[in-house]
Formats: sequence, C-alpha cells, structure tokens
Amino acid sequence: MIIVLKSTASEEQIQHIVESIESWGMTPNLSRGTERTIIGVIGDERTIRTKPLEVFPGVDSVMSVLKPYKLASAEFQADRTRITLPPVKAGEEATVIGGKDIVVVAGPCSVESKDSLHEVARVVKEGGAKLLRAGAFKPRTSPYSFQGLGVEGLRYLAEVREAVGIPIITEVMDTRDVEMVAEVADVLQIGARNTQNFNLLKVVGRSKKPVLIKRGISGTIEELLMSAEYVMSEGNANVILCERGIRTFEKATRNTLDISAVPVIKRESHLPVMVDPSHGCGQWDLVSPLAKAAVAVGADGVMVEVHPCPEEALSDGGQALLPKTFEKMMSELKRVAESVDRSI
Amino acid sequence: MIIVLKSTASEEQIQHIVESIESWGMTPNLSRGTERTIIGVIGDERTIRTKPLEVFPGVDSVMSVLKPYKLASAEFQADRTRITLPPVKAGEEATVIGGKDIVVVAGPCSVESKDSLHEVARVVKEGGAKLLRAGAFKPRTSPYSFQGLGVEGLRYLAEVREAVGIPIITEVMDTRDVEMVAEVADVLQIGARNTQNFNLLKVVGRSKKPVLIKRGISGTIEELLMSAEYVMSEGNANVILCERGIRTFEKATRNTLDISAVPVIKRESHLPVMVDPSHGCGQWDLVSPLAKAAVAVGADGVMVEVHPCPEEALSDGGQALLPKTFEKMMSELKRVAESVDRSI
Amino acid sequence: MIIVLKSTASEEQIQHIVESIESWGMTPNLSRGTERTIIGVIGDERTIRTKPLEVFPGVDSVMSVLKPYKLASAEFQADRTRITLPPVKAGEEATVIGGKDIVVVAGPCSVESKDSLHEVARVVKEGGAKLLRAGAFKPRTSPYSFQGLGVEGLRYLAEVREAVGIPIITEVMDTRDVEMVAEVADVLQIGARNTQNFNLLKVVGRSKKPVLIKRGISGTIEELLMSAEYVMSEGNANVILCERGIRTFEKATRNTLDISAVPVIKRESHLPVMVDPSHGCGQWDLVSPLAKAAVAVGADGVMVEVHPCPEEALSDGGQALLPKTFEKMMSELKRVAESVDRSI
Amino acid sequence: MIIVLKSTASEEQIQHIVESIESWGMTPNLSRGTERTIIGVIGDERTIRTKPLEVFPGVDSVMSVLKPYKLASAEFQADRTRITLPPVKAGEEATVIGGKDIVVVAGPCSVESKDSLHEVARVVKEGGAKLLRAGAFKPRTSPYSFQGLGVEGLRYLAEVREAVGIPIITEVMDTRDVEMVAEVADVLQIGARNTQNFNLLKVVGRSKKPVLIKRGISGTIEELLMSAEYVMSEGNANVILCERGIRTFEKATRNTLDISAVPVIKRESHLPVMVDPSHGCGQWDLVSPLAKAAVAVGADGVMVEVHPCPEEALSDGGQALLPKTFEKMMSELKRVAESVDRSI
Repeated sequence: MIIVLKSTASEEQIQHIVESIESWGMTPNLSRGTERTIIGVIGDERTIRTKPLEVFPGVDSVMSVLKPYKLASAEFQADRTRITLPPVKAGEEATVIGGKDIVVVAGPCSVESKDSLHEVARVVKEGGAKLLRAGAFKPRTSPYSFQGLGVEGLRYLAEVREAVGIPIITEVMDTRDVEMVAEVADVLQIGARNTQNFNLLKVVGRSKKPVLIKRGISGTIEELLMSAEYVMSEGNANVILCERGIRTFEKATRNTLDISAVPVIKRESHLPVMVDPSHGCGQWDLVSPLAKAAVAVGADGVMVEVHPCPEEALSDGGQALLPKTFEKMMSELKRVAESVDRSI
Repeated sequence: MIIVLKSTASEEQIQHIVESIESWGMTPNLSRGTERTIIGVIGDERTIRTKPLEVFPGVDSVMSVLKPYKLASAEFQADRTRITLPPVKAGEEATVIGGKDIVVVAGPCSVESKDSLHEVARVVKEGGAKLLRAGAFKPRTSPYSFQGLGVEGLRYLAEVREAVGIPIITEVMDTRDVEMVAEVADVLQIGARNTQNFNLLKVVGRSKKPVLIKRGISGTIEELLMSAEYVMSEGNANVILCERGIRTFEKATRNTLDISAVPVIKRESHLPVMVDPSHGCGQWDLVSPLAKAAVAVGADGVMVEVHPCPEEALSDGGQALLPKTFEKMMSELKRVAESVDRSI
Repeated sequence: MIIVLKSTASEEQIQHIVESIESWGMTPNLSRGTERTIIGVIGDERTIRTKPLEVFPGVDSVMSVLKPYKLASAEFQADRTRITLPPVKAGEEATVIGGKDIVVVAGPCSVESKDSLHEVARVVKEGGAKLLRAGAFKPRTSPYSFQGLGVEGLRYLAEVREAVGIPIITEVMDTRDVEMVAEVADVLQIGARNTQNFNLLKVVGRSKKPVLIKRGISGTIEELLMSAEYVMSEGNANVILCERGIRTFEKATRNTLDISAVPVIKRESHLPVMVDPSHGCGQWDLVSPLAKAAVAVGADGVMVEVHPCPEEALSDGGQALLPKTFEKMMSELKRVAESVDRSI
Repeated sequence: MIIVLKSTASEEQIQHIVESIESWGMTPNLSRGTERTIIGVIGDERTIRTKPLEVFPGVDSVMSVLKPYKLASAEFQADRTRITLPPVKAGEEATVIGGKDIVVVAGPCSVESKDSLHEVARVVKEGGAKLLRAGAFKPRTSPYSFQGLGVEGLRYLAEVREAVGIPIITEVMDTRDVEMVAEVADVLQIGARNTQNFNLLKVVGRSKKPVLIKRGISGTIEELLMSAEYVMSEGNANVILCERGIRTFEKATRNTLDISAVPVIKRESHLPVMVDPSHGCGQWDLVSPLAKAAVAVGADGVMVEVHPCPEEALSDGGQALLPKTFEKMMSELKRVAESVDRSI
C-alpha cells in the first residue's frame, strides 16, 4: 500500500499517519520527493486495505500494490486448475475443464418441457457438446415474463441427464435452493445478476459441486476474481469463470463481449475461463463468429444457446441457434481450435 | 409493438408473421412504406413482448410502444405515492416520504457497536434526519472485509431505535433474512447489488414494510422501475426508489451520480425518489454539494453516511461525514429546500 | 512515479531499471516489502511519465503520484481564475465569469436567421442571460443534417451582438476558422467532439479570446483539464470548463450529466466551471431542474438552449426552452443561487 | 419514422402533427391501438429525421425505421467493397483490402528516426505485413508529450516507402495537412479522436486516397458508419473501418476491444473492417491473442504496433511488439486465417 500525501501535508499529519500504521503492526517507509511525500506501508496489505486511509488529514490518495484476491491468483497457484466432471454413464469419458480440450456447453435458455429438453440434449451431445445448459430458475427483468419451471424443471434436467448421458449445468439464484440444485447439477451456475450476491457465493462455496461464475453485467475482471475468492475461501476450489459481455454505451449488441477478459484472466489467475457469446451479443447470427473468436483468443470453453424452434422459445429466442446452425458452428470451431493447438 | 421488416422480406414471410400475431389473439396492422413495410400490433403489448419476434424470418427489428412497467407507472396512478412511517414513540410526528418535506436519512455505513450507533442516532436526529441508516448485513466485494455484525447488529438497531426514537432503514441481502429484518426495520433496503435479485424482491414484496430499492450499479432507470414492479406485483405498493450513482468510465468519483434520474423518474412514475450522494461519489467532501443538487433537482429525500470517527470506520470511512459537517450540511440543505418550495 | 515490481523480478532486472532511472537524471528509491519490491522515482515526474516503464522486464505496474496537468491545477495557482468580458456597449457592466455572480448563457443551438437570432438575443438578455450562444459552424453526426450557416452565421452574430449589446460565445471547429471566429466572438467555444482536437486547442491557445472547453462525450475530468493545459501552455490562461453530460449505458437521457464534475474540478483546478444541462439531457423538460442542480452544486455558469419555436428549429429542437419557460427558469435559478450565497 | 403519442394526446394535437407531416410532403398513417395511437410516416425518412418531432405537443417518442446512413449501407451496395493499393515498386503485387487475404498493417506508433523506421519497415515487410503504419503527426493527451516529427516524419515515411517498397498508412489530424499527407500516404488514417471531426472527414472525402477511419473512443458503430458516410458523400468511396477498442468501466485493459463490431459492421455495411488490438488493449502481451480473435471473427485486416526497442519508444511503448514477437504472431495468424478459409 502506498500513501501519497498532499503537498500541503503538515509534519503533524504525517506523524499521525505514521503512528497509525505502526499501531496496526505495519512498517511505514517515508520517502520525501521533489513535490510530494509518499509513505510505503510494509506488511500484510490485506489488513491495511480495510483501513480508511484516504480520510486521514493530509492524504491525497492511496494506491494498492497487491491484487485483492489471493486464492484465485496466478501467483498463489502456478499450475492451472483443471476441473474433472465424472461421466454420467459408467464407461464414458470424464469431462475436463481447463485442459487441452475446449469444452462446449450448449442447450436452451430455459427448461421448457421434458420432450424439448430431451431433444436438444441429444442434438448437442451428438454435435460434440460436453455439458447441457438449461435454466430451471430464471432471473427475468420483468415479473410478467416466464420465470422458469423451477422444481419441475430440475426434475426434467435430472431425467434427461440420465437418459442422454450428459452432465448438466444449471443456474441457482437463491441461497434456499442450493442444496436442491446441487443434487441434480454437475456444475452450479451463478448468473450475471448474482455475481455479487455474496451470501449465495458463500453457500455454493460450501457445496462440493464445481461452480461457474458469470461476470457481472457491469462487473470488472477484478470483481469477478473476488467473487471466485468468496467461493474458494469457503473451501470450494473448483471455480470456472465466464465472460458473457458487459454493459456499455453500444446498443448494436445487447452487451459488449469483452474478449480481452480471457487473456487477462489467464494471466492473473489459474482458473479456467469460458465465453458465452449468446448472452454476449443477444443475436443468433453473431454467435458463431464470436465463438470462433473465443476459441482463437484462448478460452477453455464456449457456452451457447440452442433451441429446436427459436420462434417458440419462452425466453431469449433471439440468440438461440437452430440445431443445424449449431452443428455447422461446431465443425468450424474444431478447425479454429486445431489452429491454436487445442481440440474440441 | 411495431415490427419493422427487412427490405428483402418476402410475402410468404410477411404472411407467416401476420398469422402468428393473429394466433396470439392480437391484430396486425400492415403499413407498406416507401422503403420498408412495418407491422403494428394492436392488443396487449405485455403479451407480445414475450414472443421472440426478432427471430422470425424477414424481421429487421422490433420496437416497443409501451413501457414494460405498469403498477410503477405514472400513467397507471396519477397521484404521487406518499409513504407514511408511524412515529417510533407515541406523540411524535409520523414521517411522510414523498410529500413536501424532504426526508434526510443518515447514519453510519455499518452497525459497528451499540454505543457508536446510539451516538450517531442521537446526532442525526438532532440534526434533523428523519430516519437512521446502518447496515447489519453488509455486501462487501472482498470476503476478507468486515461483513457486518448480522443478527447482533439487528439487535443494536432495535435497541437504539427505541432509545432514541428514530425509525430505522437497514439492508436485507438474503431471502432467508427478510422476516427477521422486517421485525426491526421501518423500511427494508434493497442494495445496489440486489436490485435484480428477483427472488429477494418477491419476498420483500410480500412483507408489509416499505421497501427502498437502490438503483443497480449499472442498472437503467427502466430496470429500477421493473424492480419496483416486482415488489408491487406481490402486493407491496410502498416502494421508494434511490439513485446512488452508476458505473461509468470516469474514475474521479467512485460512481457517477445520475442526477437526471430524479426528474426522469418523477415524470415516468408516481413513486418517491431519494438520492444517496455518499455512495454516488465515495468522497466525503463532495457529499454536501451533491446533496444540495439533489434537493434542487427535486428529490424527495437524501441519504448520507455519518460517522463519529471516519478514521476508525469498519467500512466506507472515506465517504462518511463528521457530525459537525453533517450539521453544517443540514443547515445548507434547509436553505436550498426553501428555494424550491420544499422543507426539511 | 512509483514502479511496482513483479514478485518474480530478478536482481538483474531491478538493476536495469535502477540504472535507466539514473540515466534519465532521476533518483530511484528502492523499498523491499513483504511480497513486493517497489521503486519510487524522485525527480520531475513529467519527464519520466514519457518513458514506457511498463515494458521493462520485471515491472508489474507503474503508478503516477502527480496529476499530469500543471497550469490548470489548483496547486499551481491558489486564487480562482476570474475571466472578465468587457461590455459590448460602453457604459454597460462587464461580465465576470468565476465570481460570485453565476453567468447564464442562453440562445439557440444554431444561427438560423438574422431575425430569429435577434429575437432570441433580446429575450435572453432581458431574462438575465449575460452571453448569447448560437452556432454558425455546427458539428452534426449526419452529413445530411443542417451544417450551420457558416460565415453568413458569423455575420449575423456580429450584427446582433452590436444591436442587442450582448457578448457572444460561438463554436469554432476548424483550425482554419479560428482567426475569423475570434473577430466576432467574445468567447470561443470548443465543442465536445473537439475536446481532444489538439491542433485546434493549440491554435485557440494563441488567440487572445477566452476559450470555453466542453468536456468530451466520453472524456474524463482529467482529460478535460489536460485540454485546458494545451490552451494554457500556448499562453491563453482564460479558460472556462463546461460539463455537458457524458456517454453511459443509460438511454433515458441523451447523455448522463455528471454533476459531480463541478465540485471535483473546483477542488482540482482554479478554472471556472459551467454546466450545459440542455446537451446533458437532450430533453427540454429536464433542463430547468438540472440547471437548478447545477447552481446548487456550485457551478459558475449555466448554458441553456432557447428557441422561439422549437418545432421549427433546424437542430436540437427537442432540448430548447421556449422564451416563457426560460423566464420561469431564470426566476427559479435566482432563488436557488441566493440559497447558496450566489447571485444571478 | 414512427411517432408514438402520449395516452393523453388530444385530437387537436394529433391533427397538428398530421398537418405538419403533410406540409413536409409526406403521408401520415394513423393507427389507434388499445392504449396508444401511433402515426407512421410514409416518405423519405432522411427528410423527416431533421424535424424535431419530439417537441410537438402530444408526442411521447419518435422511432426511426431506417438506418441514418445510406452510401455505407449493405442495402445500398450488395457487393463488398475491395480497395486496391497499387504496388510501390513496379512488378510487385498490389494489396487488396477486403478480399480473401487478411491484410496485416504493422509499424511503430510514431516515426522516431529514419533509421529505426527503415529497420521496422524491413522487419514487418519480411514478416508478411502489407502496409507500414507510423505516425508523423501524433494526437497526445498531454501537451508535454512527444508530438511527432511532423513534416520531417512525413519525409522519412516517403523515403522508407520507396527504399523498402511498402505502402504507407499514416494519420492526418488537421484539415490544413491533408494535401501534404496525401502526397506521401497510400492510405490516410483518421484517428479515434477525429472520428467526428466532420470538417476533416469532408476534406479527406475530397482526396483520391483511401481512408481508414478508426472508431471513436466512445463512438457507436452507427456513428462510425456515419463518419464513413461523410467521406463517401464527398465522393471518396474507398473507406476502411477500424475497431480499436471503446471506453468502458473496465480498467484491466486501456480500452475494451469490441470484437462484435466486426460481424455487426459486415452485416450492416459493405466496407472492409480492420481491428487494431494494440490500441484495443494497450498491453503487448494481449496483442497476439486478440489478433487471433480478430482473424477468427472475420476481420479483413489487423493493425499492430512493432518497435525494435519498446523501452526506448517515444510513445505507446507498452503496447508494441518486438520484431521476434511479431514474427511469432504472424505464423500463428496464418494458421488461424486458414482455419476460417482466409489467407495472410
């Protein structure tokens, strides 16, 4: 932590800051420059971060030297995290997230009926997807929109998972539902509106299931890593991060997919990173080019929406791929993956 | 709802859209322009809003004519909502939010101890504040930061409320806690990170207590009104909206206080609007000018943080006012309020 | 300047950085912390700022201690700048920008005809405005929109200035036009799209006329002060800054008026600050409440658009006030100004 | 154009709007819905766009049906634009921008000396770049930063162009310099701070040289296309668009590269699109992954900064690639290009 003093800071003010730092068990290092005096604080920055240094008289600004996350940091763990999902059916292969294989996650936005879910699950598995996505609980901006099938949707997910033999990722929105969802899901999803629902993060942190955290709609990469830190600090190290577009002034797309987040997270953290181009743009015809960009930039997985009949989708039909478009995309993604020495 | 067709839309595609609209019980109104054909849809827009019209072949774009909120809308209710909080102590005056009086809400960011809470409560009441704010449950970006005193903090709030005779507003973060918090609080606060925690909105919507909803960190005004709609559609019409700054590229302040939100909400909705300049800027020396701007622009209330010793605050010390600064601000706010025919 | 090293930085890398700093004539100050080593650089920060320190091997990040502006800084000049415009007609009062009086600038978006300009000029002067605003050169997003009357517009401005006896502020968009515009205008305006047109800033910096610089559409406050620095470093110290709304995700208003910019600039700089609520929101019915907020927050001036018949305006009719609305606003602003010990 | 009326609009107000539309030579089409009346305007939307319909009494909102650009639109021209740069040396191949080949543009941020420019030119040409980029005129945020070599820099560019046999792209910042720059450059570059310098756009529109327009720092895709429209409406159809990152709240990268802009522009326009990952992120280690994403997403070109010794760069050293990193990137880009059926 570095404290920059005002040019008008008095000796008395400096002394007060120095003594406060010492009283917190840390060592101040005073450096008088040409125009400003600065105080470096030597000691555990995570302690001093909680002190409101900026209100001390004479202080101009306070700058952090270290990142606020630890368990999620690439400095804390040199090896990249790989998360292994056991196969649903004995004899099939496990799914590894964070390895050489790029994992494609696909499925409808919402669970709408058992039959349509079964159909999509079959289609996406055949197309090469390794996980089925579909929401039983749906966060919707309007109370008048379809809110998801809830418990009934979970039951369909469990049945289709067994029938088709594909692991499931589904969203959990409420601390009260975590246990119930964890019984069905292979991966728990924390949606973009819950990235900073800290109580929910703590509860999934106590679950044994891997957790995929979507970046908040206006969340910084640092905040996303802090949300991972919440889950990890409760004992669950199996965290996947997911870029899904951020809110900007641009309205040609629903969100602005921040593709740079992938290499930034890979530099700062050891956790695997996925990209969700469907939510990133909100338009089905952009999904395939953006998925290719995600693979080329180094993502460990891609998450897309597929619906057998988007015209009848109960949510987000505009961004869903038809099964045949999904298949075409998969064959294109395989080629791009090979060009960057990965596989799908 | 207005559907703009592509210039290349075929007659067959147009027919398919027209028939779909009719199958949903609405009336399509075809208008062939010089360059484009458009279809106006006559009927309940809230039904057709859920249909993924943008994926129908031949559709270029879809435009809404009506706002997506209803109960919160100024068209639905002409009279402005006034929310009355009964006095804590018999014989004192009730507090009305949304009337001629501008309601000042003040207090520390967090409940830190019973004594300090008692001291601040006394100070802010004497200074003219009508509600005490303080968090028992705190949403913090880092799992290593002070997380609030929780249930113990609620107990202190209840005790200080009685002792000082000031109504309480405090945040509820978890569906599991709503009942417990509602036993103590006069107003339930939904924080900026929970503005779109829809399950939480539904649960507080079933409470009898008034609810203050803070605007999301990157929430639009329309989304804030939709969050109010969630609460109101569950039967709780006592909703207060609160502008608290939005996330932008500007880093000179922690957030960018969107002062225009006040007159926009007053035009679009009948609900009372408050402004929280402390979170809006994150710097104590900007709080007082911004509070004056909030009063001048027409806010029904102002919410500020006050701490007897910001240097020792466990959270957000940098934006807290000292008691004497608070008193000075109050005397200034009174003058500005009078200049716009309001009172404090 | 403070250089934070990577935890993996080698002694050799540290030595290379230290020697480079010394070779630039500055003194490095090494501080080895628990987790990181940092190097403080003592000497003229404005020199080292130009060095790409972040590419030196072993460097994690580089943090500035000083602001990048100097002439515009409140540290450089303690007294607030006051800019005096001599009266157009002998015997009338001079206009002072940056004093106790809040200066209202009003007029149409564009010069449309001599008669209508004359009419508005008379109305706004009678209403209490001290400067007439109107554009002869107009930056328009579309090449098919009205581009301004150009030289003919300047002539009308000169004639109306004399006839009505009101100083003129008008925009200059092109380095080639500065001399010509400066012959007519009392204040040169740099528009939001030219805030970082550095050649234009240099040329107006060599003019003798005061310059009002609008904040860029997505410009930071620091960038606005750097644009002032460009003008001042060419010898023209008469700079006025103008907040006019920034681009954010919110679409209820055309821009988001960043009202906090006023107290921030007043803290960081000695230059006067105005607010343009018309461009800040783009809707005439929000102009009056926002103007009151601007006065309450401490602005030195307010700039609004007035048009005798907005339905016929050739540009920005939606945000223009009718003369009678302008008069009502002026009487309201006077009361708010008094409540904060200013006058209009 | 569609006009949505307020629910309170009177017959008289409706009549006034209808008559005004007719007086402008267009046909109003009234549609009375359940809750709102809407008026469709049939006729040339580009005319009515200039009318301030939103200020007419009774109007709630106005919605455009057509895009504001025409010449730049994919509807106006079905075939994609290809821009051919003749070879510098007789006998070499022409460079085509917008064809199957992806054009790599590389070079230093600024022209710093003739020797270093010559060295980089040779390196990038050997590595497979088809154009050399380097700025003689530099827009710098600070007046105290290196401002470019100006005319001397242009001379070096001309000499190196001949010596190495590589076409040149360089920025023009001032209307006064266009002619001079066009004598040297094969492509004129309009920088991100000048995307809406409309006078400059008009002047380059009268030049015979192709023009590359960078997206504004906070410019929408629509605004970028409108800037192209300015150039094209002056008679110069050889326009290249360049995504270079937009300003958002995220600070992990200097800008947020909006990779979705590529497929959006390819859908809306026939003009070629390039991506500049160096400015998009501002960090050299992200350039290569982002360049791969740009190729995978469908860009027609990639523009990167290369410097023989970034530690000594006079501007933007932090984002420049070393020659050997550039060579490695090129071999990777070739593989990705092949995977999407393009070539480098």
